[in-house]
Amino acid sequence: MLRTHTCGDLRLTDKGTTVTLCGWVDSYRDHGGGLFVDLRDRYGITQVVFNPPDTPQDIIDASKDLRAEYVIQVTGKVEPRPEGMANRKHASGEIELRVTELKLLNKSKAPPVSPSESITEIPNEDLRLKHRFLDLRRPVMQRAMILRDKITKGMRDYFADLNFIDVETPILGRSTPEGARDYLVPSRVHHGKFYALPQSPQLYKQILMIAGYDRYVQVARCFRDEDLRADRQPEFTQLDLEMAFIDDDDIMTLIDGLVVKLAKDLLDIDVPTPLPRMTYDEAMRRFGHDAPDLRYGLEIVDLTDLAPQSDFGVFKSVTDAGGHVRAICVPGGANHYSRRGIDALTEFVKGLGAKGLAYFRVNEEGVLDSNIAKFFSEELRAEMGTRLDAKPGDLVLFSADKWLGTCKVLHGLRKKIGEEMKLYDPKAMNFSWVVQFPMFERTEDADNPQAIGKWSAMHHPFTAPLDDSVDHLDDDPAKCRAKAYDLIINGYEAGGGTIRIHDPEVQSKVFGLLGIDKETAQDRFGFLLEALAYGAPPHGGIALGLDRMVMLFGGFDNIRDVIAFPKTQKATDLMTEAPGLVDAKQLKELAIKTDL
Amino acid sequence: MLRTHTCGDLRLTDKGTTVTLCGWVDSYRDHGGGLFVDLRDRYGITQVVFNPPDTPQDIIDASKDLRAEYVIQVTGKVEPRPEGMANRKHASGEIELRVTELKLLNKSKAPPVSPSESITEIPNEDLRLKHRFLDLRRPVMQRAMILRDKITKGMRDYFADLNFIDVETPILGRSTPEGARDYLVPSRVHHGKFYALPQSPQLYKQILMIAGYDRYVQVARCFRDEDLRADRQPEFTQLDLEMAFIDDDDIMTLIDGLVVKLAKDLLDIDVPTPLPRMTYDEAMRRFGHDAPDLRYGLEIVDLTDLAPQSDFGVFKSVTDAGGHVRAICVPGGANHYSRRGIDALTEFVKGLGAKGLAYFRVNEEGVLDSNIAKFFSEELRAEMGTRLDAKPGDLVLFSADKWLGTCKVLHGLRKKIGEEMKLYDPKAMNFSWVVQFPMFERTEDADNPQAIGKWSAMHHPFTAPLDDSVDHLDDDPAKCRAKAYDLIINGYEAGGGTIRIHDPEVQSKVFGLLGIDKETAQDRFGFLLEALAYGAPPHGGIALGLDRMVMLFGGFDNIRDVIAFPKTQKATDLMTEAPGLVDAKQLKELAIKTDL
Repeated sequence: MLRTHTCGDLRLTDKGTTVTLCGWVDSYRDHGGGLFVDLRDRYGITQVVFNPPDTPQDIIDASKDLRAEYVIQVTGKVEPRPEGMANRKHASGEIELRVTELKLLNKSKAPPVSPSESITEIPNEDLRLKHRFLDLRRPVMQRAMILRDKITKGMRDYFADLNFIDVETPILGRSTPEGARDYLVPSRVHHGKFYALPQSPQLYKQILMIAGYDRYVQVARCFRDEDLRADRQPEFTQLDLEMAFIDDDDIMTLIDGLVVKLAKDLLDIDVPTPLPRMTYDEAMRRFGHDAPDLRYGLEIVDLTDLAPQSDFGVFKSVTDAGGHVRAICVPGGANHYSRRGIDALTEFVKGLGAKGLAYFRVNEEGVLDSNIAKFFSEELRAEMGTRLDAKPGDLVLFSADKWLGTCKVLHGLRKKIGEEMKLYDPKAMNFSWVVQFPMFERTEDADNPQAIGKWSAMHHPFTAPLDDSVDHLDDDPAKCRAKAYDLIINGYEAGGGTIRIHDPEVQSKVFGLLGIDKETAQDRFGFLLEALAYGAPPHGGIALGLDRMVMLFGGFDNIRDVIAFPKTQKATDLMTEAPGLVDAKQLKELAIKTDL
Repeated sequence: MLRTHTCGDLRLTDKGTTVTLCGWVDSYRDHGGGLFVDLRDRYGITQVVFNPPDTPQDIIDASKDLRAEYVIQVTGKVEPRPEGMANRKHASGEIELRVTELKLLNKSKAPPVSPSESITEIPNEDLRLKHRFLDLRRPVMQRAMILRDKITKGMRDYFADLNFIDVETPILGRSTPEGARDYLVPSRVHHGKFYALPQSPQLYKQILMIAGYDRYVQVARCFRDEDLRADRQPEFTQLDLEMAFIDDDDIMTLIDGLVVKLAKDLLDIDVPTPLPRMTYDEAMRRFGHDAPDLRYGLEIVDLTDLAPQSDFGVFKSVTDAGGHVRAICVPGGANHYSRRGIDALTEFVKGLGAKGLAYFRVNEEGVLDSNIAKFFSEELRAEMGTRLDAKPGDLVLFSADKWLGTCKVLHGLRKKIGEEMKLYDPKAMNFSWVVQFPMFERTEDADNPQAIGKWSAMHHPFTAPLDDSVDHLDDDPAKCRAKAYDLIINGYEAGGGTIRIHDPEVQSKVFGLLGIDKETAQDRFGFLLEALAYGAPPHGGIALGLDRMVMLFGGFDNIRDVIAFPKTQKATDLMTEAPGLVDAKQLKELAIKTDL
């Protein structure tokens, strides 16, 4: 080893010992007679001092050439810092190293992105990604990568203790039924054939259950050839698992235990279990969304039955057409949102498809008032106020539309107002389940116009219905609810799973509803259907998004901050400069060889 | 849960308790009045009994429909097996379950590959791969997957305890400098551009060192678009790591510790450390190969200096041309290899490029004798015998050729004879290092004829020379030895690594020797070179082949047996039937969309 200790190791108890450190020059202060250097590595910062009489003059002279990010090896004696000079920010802040030997291990050009602790300004993301090797030196990025490592290790240990087997499933394989666009990989050996990169190990993990592995887990890389977004990468990682001889409740209980462990180990938070479970229908009714943020209230109240009593044309026409009038009551919102604030909210809901934003302020007498008050009798407003539990100073915001339209608008308002009014502690973590999703939804838009209005699977065609929903496969598919469950953290879907169908008869009915005929089923899922015919146990599983888990546990806003080498929006600009994308020029030649 | 216990849980101490098990019907014996079923899951086998009076008659009747691989749930009472009927092979073999309730969870068609313990005949591999879901049920395959999980977990834990960070590097990325053919992935978003699948995370892990991560580890999926072999898959897994501020000795010491731990934990073998280290030159001299099998002797003896004293034309012409005459002495070989045996060895060495096989048998008087004895004086044969430590009954086998030719032939003979004469305990594990590989080799064959005879890097162009070899970069590149080290297990290269160049001047010299001009270097390795200019620490690492490690630790002959879903030679046959390859018909359409 080129060092005896790291830059985070030394303490007062090491006083007087001679040690060797290696690291990067985080910052330096020349004070004429000598030099102070903050030496940095992954483990911490240690002050190293080039001063007479400890440091020979030739080394002091040499030290004057040191610059930011130079890599050095220094040997010297550990001494307490002078009285009052200790730096409590660093674990090694009470000592300093009085240098007797210096070796320059490498120079650095002046860094365009400074990783130094002393620089607090963060450069723009393009520059950071272009010089990712410098960006990754920043302590906040190192914390992100270490957190990611800890979450991954915590997950793996948790499942290993429970007898799960980590099995690697292929990256080069068949297409899987997730529905997004696959990346395709031409094979040179099998001319004209392609592999697909997996969107998830779904089919493989089901086969592992059929193969008797009983409990499978994997931290799996998955791929979707889709556009980038702030929270989406074409290559992502999921904690993927599957169990046999269990039901939906067992999977949720298992994940409850994982959440308790991670929250305790990483954030020192005690999470009570079982985590709350809410049906999809309840989530849509109370929060307008299937991944509600439960860190604050602003629950939706349905006023559809009262709307016809008003003279407000908008409400009446919506309810006449079978639509809904729903509202949220924002405590203190009347003061927080001025006239201009309401205008901004109006613009916002228009972006979500609303025609406008009806509202009431609750005045000091507790009366609902606004420019539309005249359309509502005093009694009607009082009744609405009671239903909404409206208090003086509150703001009532309406959405009148079809059911899903009101969900979209009121969910959007909840989220926006939650953030703007800081209705939650940003460090709080809220975990819950949304369960019993619909089995089927009507396809609304698709490449293929013939598909519109037909049933499609809300999850995938192997999802099992609830036991008491099986009959609805025949009489009313819209009523079918699935053994499906999503883990929600702070309003984000952190993961989700389902129990799979293991009964060939049920599977055949589901395929029928989805318009998948026997030949198509055989073509697309043949090898899984084949396996299902040879003794498939009841089984189910879940996948958690690792990138998102790290983001939420670490309090990061951007998924790229928790991935060492992310793909970027400006990938084409970076293609020849940053890791992550192939140099097209170099590979064109190979592509020709491969007969692409 | 659908069960209270697994099929491996129950013991005599559970006597009298009522339990529920789930599993597969491994075998069944109808004895008229009732049925015995061996119920199997991943954890073991439990005998379940459908007999009066414990089992109601309707359940006995239903049980008669059970067939191999049916999945059932049974409830009943745990009782000791009748006197003398215990099955010591199974941990639950002393008890049986007297069934009171039966639920058929799923049927199975008659399995073309039987996973039953009672069937000892293994079907051919094509059939096994086609029905992998059944093949994977076989206990030996489950042991392979569990061993793989344990080795992986053991590695991860070992490095986590030593402060290594597990960092995920991209699968979709740039081309890396390993030299095999890359798989290419067309990007839909960046039209006309390609990603490459990594042959190793080499460049990324070097960037992580430059980024200050200090100790990186990852169980990494790697890809090479090459033909399949028995020991090679196009998609493989390596334990990949890199450290900063270390030298070659530190990496080897680290891996010594891993080997000790794995051998102890998995095989209960105590491996003494440090593992023996042998230079590349010594390995070639003594064993003719850079991955020698040290479980047995048969060391090569060089007799080039004695050859001219003989009248044997073959030897004389070879030594006249500057070639070598080398031999191995096989203890007891004279008896083991009859005339016909020698003929077979002769055919064998011809396949390795030899023109024939010169040999001596050592007779009872200790005299070297054969059809070529007449060309050698008695004294010369005695001198040879002494050098070879030849004893009565031994067999001496020669190779006369250029240096590398003799290496190839004598290594081949060593390996073949070692196996044929069973010179080692098949359960023995031998670990060692081969170190100090040449930096450069002359390119012998290449697509590009201009490359022939030019220097190429034996590892990759970032490999650092030994400190005392740096000067040879200028005066004699052939003499340059690298800070490179391979871990050898039982004659297989289980992994290898190098210390990387961190000095720009040395890197520039190496590029020069390899004929890589500045522009090419910038083109191919630009983003790494850029990173190296911003304070690169001394660093190096290693990669161990996980598939091969599992194969060697588990005593498997075939790498496909340690991979859940391997690619196969007959992949085209299996393409629409087994997991692992894309259905070409289905994907052609997508390929058109992607403008391939």
